[in-house]
Amino acid sequence: MTEYKIALVGFGGVNRGLARLVAERNAAWQRELGFSLKIVGVTDLFLGSLIDRDGLDAAQLADLPAIKGAFATLPGGTAEAFNEAVIKQSGADLIAEATFTNPVDGEPAATFCRWALESGKHVVTTNKGPIALHGAELKALARRNGVAFEYEGAVMSGTPVIRMARQTLPGAGIVGFEGILNGTSNYVLTRMEEGLGFDAAVAKAQELGYAEADPTADVEGHDVRLKVVILANELLDAHLSVSDVACSGISALTPADLAQAREEGARWKLIGSAQRQADGSVSARVEARKLDLGHPLAGITGATNALAFNTELLGAVTLSGPGAGRIETAFALLSDIVALHATHGRQ
Amino acid sequence: MTEYKIALVGFGGVNRGLARLVAERNAAWQRELGFSLKIVGVTDLFLGSLIDRDGLDAAQLADLPAIKGAFATLPGGTAEAFNEAVIKQSGADLIAEATFTNPVDGEPAATFCRWALESGKHVVTTNKGPIALHGAELKALARRNGVAFEYEGAVMSGTPVIRMARQTLPGAGIVGFEGILNGTSNYVLTRMEEGLGFDAAVAKAQELGYAEADPTADVEGHDVRLKVVILANELLDAHLSVSDVACSGISALTPADLAQAREEGARWKLIGSAQRQADGSVSARVEARKLDLGHPLAGITGATNALAFNTELLGAVTLSGPGAGRIETAFALLSDIVALHATHGRQ
Repeated sequence: MTEYKIALVGFGGVNRGLARLVAERNAAWQRELGFSLKIVGVTDLFLGSLIDRDGLDAAQLADLPAIKGAFATLPGGTAEAFNEAVIKQSGADLIAEATFTNPVDGEPAATFCRWALESGKHVVTTNKGPIALHGAELKALARRNGVAFEYEGAVMSGTPVIRMARQTLPGAGIVGFEGILNGTSNYVLTRMEEGLGFDAAVAKAQELGYAEADPTADVEGHDVRLKVVILANELLDAHLSVSDVACSGISALTPADLAQAREEGARWKLIGSAQRQADGSVSARVEARKLDLGHPLAGITGATNALAFNTELLGAVTLSGPGAGRIETAFALLSDIVALHATHGRQ
Repeated sequence: MTEYKIALVGFGGVNRGLARLVAERNAAWQRELGFSLKIVGVTDLFLGSLIDRDGLDAAQLADLPAIKGAFATLPGGTAEAFNEAVIKQSGADLIAEATFTNPVDGEPAATFCRWALESGKHVVTTNKGPIALHGAELKALARRNGVAFEYEGAVMSGTPVIRMARQTLPGAGIVGFEGILNGTSNYVLTRMEEGLGFDAAVAKAQELGYAEADPTADVEGHDVRLKVVILANELLDAHLSVSDVACSGISALTPADLAQAREEGARWKLIGSAQRQADGSVSARVEARKLDLGHPLAGITGATNALAFNTELLGAVTLSGPGAGRIETAFALLSDIVALHATHGRQ
């Protein structure tokens, strides 16, 4: 039986969800997955930090009030986020990085990943920034240090789109993909089909917690663009940067556009896509597209995400599921640990 | 570099598709997948049989006319199907079983699988009969003999539904599934939504080669029932037999039923499903169901298949793709070989 000592970096919804799962399911994981987790450290810019090499109480962590400096209220805790100490000196085998996405330079998450990998610790992360901006460097760093670097949750939360491609489609010949990769914008389009204007639909999404106060990254395609870079580099062995991906959003669409599409037997969707070209290069874009109702992505409504792989031998194969959610994204971290346990767990 | 010596049992569309892939892609597989295939034997009740331990010409096999006794026209071939000799004495490491599905007792395919497994040969198959009717016995036999027994193609052809569940969803808590698992009946329903009557829609499906001369197994749910047994036993660790699954089809539906559903914002689909019950048992059924348009399977039209996993941590996760086709199903055999190469290939 393996016990992984894990440190949680960033303690928002996702790592809090993982702590909740540890509290409720560790015994079941021992039986079903062959390992359990012991949380030995946690750090968060807002909440502070805490280390206990003998193991922290996962339920207590999950229940911690979300108030500034809250870790200082626990024995041995502090209101300061000692990120480097938690990553390097908590005795962790494994770092779960789930801080905020910085779409400009991926920091400070990229540095957290480097510290962990250089110290010979596995990294699992749900953070798009380090992968989209520094993926090749971090993967090489992991390889050199003989540890795993897994990031299923960077795209479509726990819906296992990256691992499915890697583990079940070798030989199928993936030549491209099209995806609905942002639940907020898809929810907005679904409400607009019911007659709401763009602003009213965004307000509704904000009310339900799908959209942030500033919805730009969601509705203008910037969030999708990071995911397209990650998927193109992963699935098509491309070497794309964010600036290689032309990007536009849905804010120019009107209810009249959507109604007209409906009359034509079609539907507008925000699509992130990439395609291998005849010369071997990969082109990628994010744009609103009018899809025929027979298209595999036309039926994806509400906040659901989906990715249609375009393959030589199978044609279109489509995976749909949640694209967000605390527990759903925490599962992505768990699935990364399941994967690294299979590859690195029996040393 | 590994070279697997493979014998093809049954030489209809699927194994002929595999021979075509070997002819075209063996060199690429060496590079991309780490193995190549050498066809050392082939047998078919209609075409006869042929063994060559030095390797048969895959392109010549793929191009062989589909006329009775055709293998007798090739050097060393015979019009008789020496199944046992091809399985046991061709020097094969690996048997690709793709004969017809016998829904009553799974024979003769089950016997072919037993011969191979008892002789220490891996088996990959696309045949629902042996898995649905003798799956537990054959899996145990494979384990005892230290060989692989893989059958991704028994459900949804090459769409990797079984392997996705096994490899990417451990820990997600699969508690049930609902599927559109028969392309013929889904195609018939799609045409009936356009106004065709049941008989006319079936005739159209026959014209396109989707439906057989006797469409009973497709439209009455018998084909789906075998797949539900396979999936329930695989995904939910159930121990179901075919007779445990209540089964009805779509032949009683009229265009008026479909039009009424449309008015209600719904759609009729033939659904195979299974669910874990509170007492731990698993119940399963096949029936026509009226789905709300927001249901993950409501948008699956035409001959496409789909399976929605119902999970504790992710909610619904849905995979859709082809459910039939020569090359698509041949890919299932290839994906089985990729999987056994990962588990048994580095002995």
